[in-house]
Amino acid sequence: MRAVVFEEFQTFPSLTEVETPEPGPGEVLLRVAGAGACHSDVSVYRVFEKGGPGAQNPPFTLGHENSGWVERVGTGVSERIKVGAPYLVYGPIGCQHCRKCASGLETYCENAATLPYLAVGLGRDGGMAEYVTVPGHHLIPLGDADPVAAAPLSDAGLTPYHAIKKALPHLEGGGKYALVIGLGGLGQIGVQILKALTGATVIATDLKDDARDRAEANGAVTVAGGEGQAERIRELTRGRGVDAAFDFVGASPTIATAAASMAQGGRLSVVGIGTGTHEFSFFTNPYESYVTNTYWGSVSDLWEVVDLYRAGQIRPEVERYSMDEALEAYRRLEAGEVTGRAVVVPNQS
Amino acid sequence: MRAVVFEEFQTFPSLTEVETPEPGPGEVLLRVAGAGACHSDVSVYRVFEKGGPGAQNPPFTLGHENSGWVERVGTGVSERIKVGAPYLVYGPIGCQHCRKCASGLETYCENAATLPYLAVGLGRDGGMAEYVTVPGHHLIPLGDADPVAAAPLSDAGLTPYHAIKKALPHLEGGGKYALVIGLGGLGQIGVQILKALTGATVIATDLKDDARDRAEANGAVTVAGGEGQAERIRELTRGRGVDAAFDFVGASPTIATAAASMAQGGRLSVVGIGTGTHEFSFFTNPYESYVTNTYWGSVSDLWEVVDLYRAGQIRPEVERYSMDEALEAYRRLEAGEVTGRAVVVPNQS
Amino acid sequence: MRAVVFEEFQTFPSLTEVETPEPGPGEVLLRVAGAGACHSDVSVYRVFEKGGPGAQNPPFTLGHENSGWVERVGTGVSERIKVGAPYLVYGPIGCQHCRKCASGLETYCENAATLPYLAVGLGRDGGMAEYVTVPGHHLIPLGDADPVAAAPLSDAGLTPYHAIKKALPHLEGGGKYALVIGLGGLGQIGVQILKALTGATVIATDLKDDARDRAEANGAVTVAGGEGQAERIRELTRGRGVDAAFDFVGASPTIATAAASMAQGGRLSVVGIGTGTHEFSFFTNPYESYVTNTYWGSVSDLWEVVDLYRAGQIRPEVERYSMDEALEAYRRLEAGEVTGRAVVVPNQS
Amino acid sequence: MRAVVFEEFQTFPSLTEVETPEPGPGEVLLRVAGAGACHSDVSVYRVFEKGGPGAQNPPFTLGHENSGWVERVGTGVSERIKVGAPYLVYGPIGCQHCRKCASGLETYCENAATLPYLAVGLGRDGGMAEYVTVPGHHLIPLGDADPVAAAPLSDAGLTPYHAIKKALPHLEGGGKYALVIGLGGLGQIGVQILKALTGATVIATDLKDDARDRAEANGAVTVAGGEGQAERIRELTRGRGVDAAFDFVGASPTIATAAASMAQGGRLSVVGIGTGTHEFSFFTNPYESYVTNTYWGSVSDLWEVVDLYRAGQIRPEVERYSMDEALEAYRRLEAGEVTGRAVVVPNQS
Repeated sequence: MRAVVFEEFQTFPSLTEVETPEPGPGEVLLRVAGAGACHSDVSVYRVFEKGGPGAQNPPFTLGHENSGWVERVGTGVSERIKVGAPYLVYGPIGCQHCRKCASGLETYCENAATLPYLAVGLGRDGGMAEYVTVPGHHLIPLGDADPVAAAPLSDAGLTPYHAIKKALPHLEGGGKYALVIGLGGLGQIGVQILKALTGATVIATDLKDDARDRAEANGAVTVAGGEGQAERIRELTRGRGVDAAFDFVGASPTIATAAASMAQGGRLSVVGIGTGTHEFSFFTNPYESYVTNTYWGSVSDLWEVVDLYRAGQIRPEVERYSMDEALEAYRRLEAGEVTGRAVVVPNQS
Repeated sequence: MRAVVFEEFQTFPSLTEVETPEPGPGEVLLRVAGAGACHSDVSVYRVFEKGGPGAQNPPFTLGHENSGWVERVGTGVSERIKVGAPYLVYGPIGCQHCRKCASGLETYCENAATLPYLAVGLGRDGGMAEYVTVPGHHLIPLGDADPVAAAPLSDAGLTPYHAIKKALPHLEGGGKYALVIGLGGLGQIGVQILKALTGATVIATDLKDDARDRAEANGAVTVAGGEGQAERIRELTRGRGVDAAFDFVGASPTIATAAASMAQGGRLSVVGIGTGTHEFSFFTNPYESYVTNTYWGSVSDLWEVVDLYRAGQIRPEVERYSMDEALEAYRRLEAGEVTGRAVVVPNQS
Repeated sequence: MRAVVFEEFQTFPSLTEVETPEPGPGEVLLRVAGAGACHSDVSVYRVFEKGGPGAQNPPFTLGHENSGWVERVGTGVSERIKVGAPYLVYGPIGCQHCRKCASGLETYCENAATLPYLAVGLGRDGGMAEYVTVPGHHLIPLGDADPVAAAPLSDAGLTPYHAIKKALPHLEGGGKYALVIGLGGLGQIGVQILKALTGATVIATDLKDDARDRAEANGAVTVAGGEGQAERIRELTRGRGVDAAFDFVGASPTIATAAASMAQGGRLSVVGIGTGTHEFSFFTNPYESYVTNTYWGSVSDLWEVVDLYRAGQIRPEVERYSMDEALEAYRRLEAGEVTGRAVVVPNQS
Repeated sequence: MRAVVFEEFQTFPSLTEVETPEPGPGEVLLRVAGAGACHSDVSVYRVFEKGGPGAQNPPFTLGHENSGWVERVGTGVSERIKVGAPYLVYGPIGCQHCRKCASGLETYCENAATLPYLAVGLGRDGGMAEYVTVPGHHLIPLGDADPVAAAPLSDAGLTPYHAIKKALPHLEGGGKYALVIGLGGLGQIGVQILKALTGATVIATDLKDDARDRAEANGAVTVAGGEGQAERIRELTRGRGVDAAFDFVGASPTIATAAASMAQGGRLSVVGIGTGTHEFSFFTNPYESYVTNTYWGSVSDLWEVVDLYRAGQIRPEVERYSMDEALEAYRRLEAGEVTGRAVVVPNQS
C-alpha cells in the first residue's frame, strides 16, 4: 500500500510503497477514511533532531489524526468493535498500566519516558496510508457522521476540548468572559466549543483579518493585535478581565497578552507548544489567577468531542487531498497556504 | 401611598392607602419600578392558615420580586449605592450573622426558624406599592436595562438559575441532556438559562401546547404529556437518560416522570414547591443519580442573573399592570390567564 | 488445581479439582495470594435464582477479591507487568470499549446488560483457587505490602472508598460530620478512610457492641441503635446534621435513620445492596440534601486504595484460611461468625 | 483608653491614650480579649512609604487579628449578636456591595482601590487597645474556647486555611503529597490544617531546626534547606512530586523550590507576600500544574477555622503580653525573638 513516510530527520517525507500491516493482539486494522496533516508533523520531520526534545525516530508513516473503517480485528479486542463500521482514533498510546492510562488519559502516562513511541503516527506508523493498525480500545464510533471531516478532531478537536473542559468551572454562570488567542485550526474549533458549551462572551484575537472574520462567523467578538491589545480586551469585559484564556500560539508575547487580560481567579491555559515564558509575581498576578499548560486529551474527552461533532456543534473546516496529493498537503501546510485543516483521503467509503 | 395589602388569612388582598416607609439603619428606600405577582403570593393569602406551614402573618404589603430607583439611603449603607439609580432587589432576609447569611445565601439562613419574616414581601412589607424599604446590601445595579421586565428575575429568574447553576457540573461537556418539566414563568426562563449556559440538548415538557411552543421558540425540544412520556424522553437521549432534570411543578407524577428519565450520575432538582413524593430504591435508581430540592438562591447568583439579563441571554415575558390594575393582576393570576409574568408598575421612570 | 466452585443455584459451593487456566490475549495468569470471601458470594450461591436479578450462571470458581503473583503473561499485555511481582486485582470487567470502560469505571459499563459476566469471580472464574486469569490492565502493584491482607481491598476497600471519594466535596473544611451505618467489613474500612482523608467528626452506628468498639478504636464516635437514634446523631452535630452519610446496610430503617440525620446540602450514599426504600418530599428533605447509591469503584480508585494501604492508613482485619478450610470460611460467613474479612490463602509466597 | 498607635510612616508605634470609640450603624463595640501582632504590621509602620504600595495612612491603632466580648451594639446589627459573648473578628472590610463582598469575600472586594481602608487595624483603628469597633456581620462566636489564643486565627489561621481550602481538590484521596515552605506562625498552622483535613503526607521545610522540629511534632515530614532540597522533596513522593505546595515565604528561591517539586496537575499557592518571581514555560512546567497567589480569606472560611479551633484541630502557639508590654511584643517581633504568635491581652475576661 502507499504511505507518507518520515524517513530521515530534517527531511521532507516521501510518498512510498510499504507493506500493509497486520493487527497484533488487542489491535484493529483500519481502512483509513481521513488523516489530518498537523503542524506538529512538520516539527517532527523538519525541526527536531535525533535525540533532541520531541524527536521520534524514523522511519514511520505520519498521521496522528485518523478515522477509518474496521477492516480486521486482532485477538482480545472488545466485541463491541464492528467490522466495516467507521471510527475515530484516539492517538496517544501510553504504558496501558499506570493510573493515568487506566483512566484513559494516556497523554499523561506516568511511564511516558520509557516508551518506544508516543502515539499512532508519532514514533509508530500512522494514518497517512491506506491502512493503519491501532489499539482496539482507542476507537470512538462515528455513526452516520462524515468520517473524513472527523479526522482532525483527534487532535485539532481534542486538544482545545480538553483545555476548555478543564476550564469550564471558571466559565460557569452568567457574566463570564473567555479569550482565544491564535485562530488557526485549533483556535477556530476552540471558539466553536466555547460557544457551544458556555454562556461566556468569547473574545478572539489573531493577526490575520480573515482568521478573525471566521471567528466572528463562529460567534466570537474579535480584537486585532498591536498596541493596546490587552486594554481593548479588558474593556470588552467591563474592566474585570477574562475568566479563562486559551493561548493556541504559546509565544512570550501571546502569553503576556493573555496574562495582562486575566480576571481574579482566572485560568490561562497555554495550549500552543511554543517557547514562550511568563513571569509570575505576587504583586502583578490577579489574586488566584494562574497560568498552566495542557496537552492533547483523554479517551473520554474524545467521546464527547464526537458527541459535539455528531450534533453539529463542532464543524471542522477541511480541505481534502487524495493520496496522490498527500505531499502537496504538507507543502501547502509549510507554506501557510492551508485554511482550516488538510485531510488526506486514501480510500473512498 | 397606595399598596396591595394582604390583610387577613384566606382573603383576597386590598388596594389601600398606607404610610410611606422610612429606611432604617442599613436600609434603602426604593421608588418601585416593577413588582412581580407570583403564585406563591396566592398561597400566602388564599391557602396558608395561621400558624400552619408557609404562613406569614398579615398585614403586610405583597410583592417579593422588586426593582426600583433609590430614593433615600439610611445610615450605614454602602457608599456604592447611588440615589436615583435603578436596582434589582434580592428578596430573602436572613439573620445577617450565620455562615449562610455571611455568604449571601440568606434563603438557607441557619436561624430562619426564629426570624419574624422571610423576605421583602413575605412577612414584611413588599414592593406592590409606590415605595418599599429593603436592606442596602441586597441591591444589584441594573444599569441601562429595563427595570420593569427585570422585576420577576428576583424570583422567577433567580430560582431556576440557582437550581441550574448547582447542576452545571452534570451538564459540562458534549453529549449532555437536560429536562425541564413545567413551562410556566420559571420553566421558560429555565429553558433560556440552560440554552445560554450549556451545550446540552434541552428537552421540555408541559401539558399546554402553547407553553411547549414557547419553549421551542426558546430552543428546547419538546415532549407532550401522557402515556409513554418518560420513554419518549429517553429515546431523545439515545437511551442514556438525562443528566439533569428540573421539575418546576413538584407533583408526584412529574417527579416520577423525571426520575424515570434519569441517566447514571444525573441530578433531579425539584424546584416547584409541590406536595409530590418519590420513592428511592437501590435497584431502581440509576447509579449515582439522585433527587434533591432547591429553594430560591443567593445574592451572587442574582448578580449573575442580572448579567444574563443585561446581555440579552434571559428575556422574561411580562404583562404590565398599573397600580390601579394591581388587584386585576392577581385575579388573572388565580384564573390562569397570565402568560409569562404579571408585573405591577407603580411609578414611571 | 483446587478451586471453590459454585456449581448450582441455591447450593453451597464445592471444593473441587479443576483445570489450571491459560491466559488469553491481554490476560495474565496469577498465582493467588489471597481471595476474600464476600457476603455477595453468599447471595450468588444461596439466594439468587436462575434468570432473576443478580444471578450469574454456574458453574464458575468464586472469589472476586483477589491478589497474587504474576505467573505468566498473555499476548498484548503491558510490559510494565512483571512476572513474579505481587498485584491486587481490579475485579469488574466491562465491554472494554464504552466511555465508562475507557475511563476505568467498568462497574458502570454502558453495555453491562449484554455482557456474559460481571467480574472475575462473578460469572467468570475467580480467585478461590490456586490460579486465576485476569485482564492485564486490571492489576495494581503491591510492592512490599502484605498481599494476603490486601485481597479484600478489591471490594471491601474499593466500595467504601469510591462512595467516600464521591462525597469528599461535602466533607471539605472544618466543622464537618460524617455518618457510617453498619460496621462490618466495609463499614470499618469506611471509618478508617474517613478518618484518614477528612477532618470530619465520624459518627458510627451498629447494633453490635463489639462492632462499635472497633469503630471507636478506629477513631469514630459511636451511637447505639434504638429509640431516638437520629436525635442522638443530630445532637452530636450541634443540631446541624451530617454532611455525608454512608449506609452499608441499605435497609429501609437504616436509610430512614440516615435521612433523618442529614444537614442541608448533605449526601446520603446507600452502599449496602439492600431492599430498602426512602420517600423523598420537598418539605421533609433538608434543602439540597439527597439520597444516592454507589456500586464498587474504578481502577484509579483502587490505585488510591492501595496507596492508603501501603501507607498504613487502611488496616483491613483479616482471618486467614488455607485452601482446605475454604468452605469453612463460607460456612462461618453465613453463620455470622467472621470478624473482619475471611481470606483464603491458596499458596504461600 | 490605651492603644498602640501607628503615628507616622517609618516610625515605631506609640503606646498612647486615645478616646474610646462609639459603634456606628451596623457596628459593634468590642472589649478586646486578644490582638495578634503580625509581621505585616511591621511593614506598615517600618517599610511602606506614603503613597506607595501597601501604605495605609496614619494615624490609626494597629491590630488586625482580634477577639473580644461585645460591649455595646450599634443600630441595625443582627439580633444574633449577644452583649457579653466572646467573638473572633473577621478583619477585611470591603465596599459591602459588590458580588465579592456579598459573598463574604471582602479581601477580594471589586472596589478595593476606592476604599479609605483595608481592614480593622489596617487604615482604620484596630484591636491593640482596650476597645475596638467592628462591622457587626464580621463576628464569629467563640463559645467556651479561649478567646486569647483565638485572636491570631483572624489572619495566621485564616490565611493558610483559605489557601489550603482552595487546594483541597488536589489533595483528595489516597497517595497525595503536600509541601509547606516557611514554618513561622502561618506555616505551623498550615501544617496542622493539612494534617487535620487531608490524608496527604505533609512535607515541611524551613532553614531553622527548631521550626522543623515543631512541624514534625505537628505531624509533618521535614526536609532541610540547601543543595538538593527539591530532589529530596521529590524522593519523598516516590518521584511523582507534590500535589499542592504552600509557600509562606514568597521569595524567588522558595517559589523555585516549590515549582521544582510539583507533580502533574499540582497547585502551588504563594501565600507569603514576598517579592519573588517564577518563570513559567510550557516545557518545564509539569502538565496542568500551576502557580497562583491567595490573600487572606472569606467570612465563611473563618467560621470553619473557628470550628477547627473549637474542636482542637488547630492549636495556635501564642505568647501573651499585657497592654504595658505591647510595644515590647513588636520589638521582639522585629528582632525575630517571637516563637508562634505574640498576642496583646488588654483586658481580663
